[in-house]
Amino acid sequence: MANDWSTFGADLHLELRGPRLRAGLTDALREAVRGGRLEAGTRLPSSRSLAADLGIARNTVADAYAELVAEGWLTARQGSGTRVAHRTAPRAPAPRSRTRAPRPAAPAHDLKAGTPDLASFPRADWLKAYRRALTAAPHAAFGYGDPRGRDELRTALAGYLARARGVHARPERIVVCAGFTHGLSLLGQVLRARGARAAAVESYGLGLHADALGRAGLGTPVLPFDEAGTSVREPADLDGCGAVLMTAAHQFPLGGALPPDRRAAVVDWARGAGGFVLEDDYDGEFRYDRQPVGALQGLDPERVVYLGTASKSLAPALRLAWMVLPEGLVDEVVEAKRAADQVSAAPDQLAFAEFLGSGAYDRHVRAMRLRYRRRRDQLVAAVAARSPETRIGGIAAGLHAVLVLPPGTERETLRSAAWHGLAVRGLDDYRRPGASRAADGLVVGYATPSDSAWPGALEALLRTLPLRAG
Amino acid sequence: MANDWSTFGADLHLELRGPRLRAGLTDALREAVRGGRLEAGTRLPSSRSLAADLGIARNTVADAYAELVAEGWLTARQGSGTRVAHRTAPRAPAPRSRTRAPRPAAPAHDLKAGTPDLASFPRADWLKAYRRALTAAPHAAFGYGDPRGRDELRTALAGYLARARGVHARPERIVVCAGFTHGLSLLGQVLRARGARAAAVESYGLGLHADALGRAGLGTPVLPFDEAGTSVREPADLDGCGAVLMTAAHQFPLGGALPPDRRAAVVDWARGAGGFVLEDDYDGEFRYDRQPVGALQGLDPERVVYLGTASKSLAPALRLAWMVLPEGLVDEVVEAKRAADQVSAAPDQLAFAEFLGSGAYDRHVRAMRLRYRRRRDQLVAAVAARSPETRIGGIAAGLHAVLVLPPGTERETLRSAAWHGLAVRGLDDYRRPGASRAADGLVVGYATPSDSAWPGALEALLRTLPLRAG
Repeated sequence: MANDWSTFGADLHLELRGPRLRAGLTDALREAVRGGRLEAGTRLPSSRSLAADLGIARNTVADAYAELVAEGWLTARQGSGTRVAHRTAPRAPAPRSRTRAPRPAAPAHDLKAGTPDLASFPRADWLKAYRRALTAAPHAAFGYGDPRGRDELRTALAGYLARARGVHARPERIVVCAGFTHGLSLLGQVLRARGARAAAVESYGLGLHADALGRAGLGTPVLPFDEAGTSVREPADLDGCGAVLMTAAHQFPLGGALPPDRRAAVVDWARGAGGFVLEDDYDGEFRYDRQPVGALQGLDPERVVYLGTASKSLAPALRLAWMVLPEGLVDEVVEAKRAADQVSAAPDQLAFAEFLGSGAYDRHVRAMRLRYRRRRDQLVAAVAARSPETRIGGIAAGLHAVLVLPPGTERETLRSAAWHGLAVRGLDDYRRPGASRAADGLVVGYATPSDSAWPGALEALLRTLPLRAG
Repeated sequence: MANDWSTFGADLHLELRGPRLRAGLTDALREAVRGGRLEAGTRLPSSRSLAADLGIARNTVADAYAELVAEGWLTARQGSGTRVAHRTAPRAPAPRSRTRAPRPAAPAHDLKAGTPDLASFPRADWLKAYRRALTAAPHAAFGYGDPRGRDELRTALAGYLARARGVHARPERIVVCAGFTHGLSLLGQVLRARGARAAAVESYGLGLHADALGRAGLGTPVLPFDEAGTSVREPADLDGCGAVLMTAAHQFPLGGALPPDRRAAVVDWARGAGGFVLEDDYDGEFRYDRQPVGALQGLDPERVVYLGTASKSLAPALRLAWMVLPEGLVDEVVEAKRAADQVSAAPDQLAFAEFLGSGAYDRHVRAMRLRYRRRRDQLVAAVAARSPETRIGGIAAGLHAVLVLPPGTERETLRSAAWHGLAVRGLDDYRRPGASRAADGLVVGYATPSDSAWPGALEALLRTLPLRAG
């Protein structure tokens, strides 16, 4: 049927009137070529004759032909008429070749750590902040922005971080980024460009963070730990490192706060070695039993890079995070960020500035702190009642706890969890290659479910735990 | 005054009642240490005596001391009392050391190319789309997202790109990115990881695009050009290249559309060499005198990567752009993106999906097309009237035009522009290292000013042009 012009007009399904006629004809012809109905080399009817067939103006056809010649679908040569171009043999996108394995059914309950309760995202308050910000924004806010981020947000963050986290923050030292890993990647690039060969990481942590440093060309030696937490007493552990990445306020996932002498020791190392501490303060807002542990950065703003995020306190989907940088790193980080074209959307930044400035952020954090604390208390009480020998660690803060399991039972317990429809991770998932093992355990993200899903998730967790003699 | 305890209580500016008392005391002490008012080694008064001085409960002071010991600001040893820690000698952030040169006054008029009319950003329509999107979004939309971007947006884009740009787009081939350069950086990484050594670029273009490829480890040889545009007739020019970056629909900044035979030739090269064409379709929506030139990608979706952006059609500040990928590149690009933590904020993506789906995007693009076309017509008419010998190129499409200047006069004309308070760039600013010179000229971004600023900017431009015999 490729050359059967008698039916071609009908095939085109043209609306034969109105301003879209030429465009419709062009589109239909293009589709016919692309789809293979018109093969390469096929000579098209003259514009006069197709126009007559279709009952439309000749110029309309001629214009469509010219358009398609310009696009390379057709060729037009004096004497040989208009033909389907040879080079443009139709190549539809190949169908997806691999057959993907069918996905297992999603688990019914989710206690994987790392995500806050998404159902509690304060939509109305956020929308209010967004509306105010969008309405008040100067025209220039819609252009290409400062790679450091909007002034309004950096000013609001400086105030908030000083107040809530004891961070020495000045707006000109703050760089807004699209997430913690984004910030870490930029820092890795900068450190590598300065000649650093490695950045030490803790024995337990997120693999993707070490990966981000690795992609920047840095080795990632692992720091040892003991009962008190990550050990930074032996400077030899940091030999050759340009930086050390730490979750000082609340080790992820083990859960402890770095003791004062170790906080001081790591800052001392940075001062002596000219290195930097990269402080991952992912959940600093959430501390339940006493005042928050202040940020390490306050001890020496010139040697500690503070990294915070709205991903746990508000929502990961906003892609809003921030770095507070030593003076000496500001320009290099800004240049790396500028080159990579990564600025969070200005309206989001302005909305977050408004959200912080209006007190909505404090209100939300307070409400979530109460909610998560209640869940933590329920978790502790339920485990004590149902599995009294199970020790729970890391409960003073944050969005997760560690349930310490009898030695050698972690994998079996994870299988049990899957059986009970519970998505949860074991401690070993977070152990870095080469690190010694802290314990068998489950990392329970009690913030993850919605309020309505929480009781079921908790029950599934309790059923997952090994039965003990009691 | 560091040790003058008699006035210390007054200095703390404490609210001496209420739940914030302990926190206030802690903050004030921390500040005193950090700011240097309390020097390292200073012994603090006992909690009993400070409490008495301040007229507050002893436990409040003891708690504050304990907190600061935990943070490393103070040390407490049996027998020696509580002292300011030695390791935490106060180090306020160093003042910004370099004196920055005073900035010259901002030019009064701006015709630099690359930014749309920011005053025309459709705030009300965008806000409406954002509100709808935020209200309708499932809870999961606030979590960590699919690195490809939201389904809703990829589906809306697939429909739009097929209809408006002749792109063969299926949602699973689309990856949302935070800007053109972000997408290009990811592609550069992927191509380099596949073993490509170089990606060819056009003789004229944005330096930061070539830089992005360079940072990925790719060489960026320059393609020659002639009157018809970038020359891709000699496959030897592409020897050793894994890709070629092109602005096929509207060369930036020279302004021409790549002729049909060259469109075909570059796709032929990609097929034969197993390479890829990276199609930078930055302003494909804006064509004034005839139907838009369809995207090159339609010729072979397996060898052309289509890159589009909302930066010119809507606003750079949204950080929304997209790639339509060949099947063979999808997984690698998605993995590179996942690793780098760069997903545009989901609410923005959902708002843009709503904006596209509701027809608001088409309406906005149509309105802006009329507005920019009117400005282009005014530019052409004014230059013809006031400087009849000046040739204007690249006016069929886009947001900018090229004013061709008498040979050897570009730098002088730019000085004249500065004198007239006009920010504008010369063609040579866009010439890539090693490329031959097309002409002396000004690249006039007539879309950049607001409607109210446009007449003044045009007048400044006309005054800038060299006087000719006439």
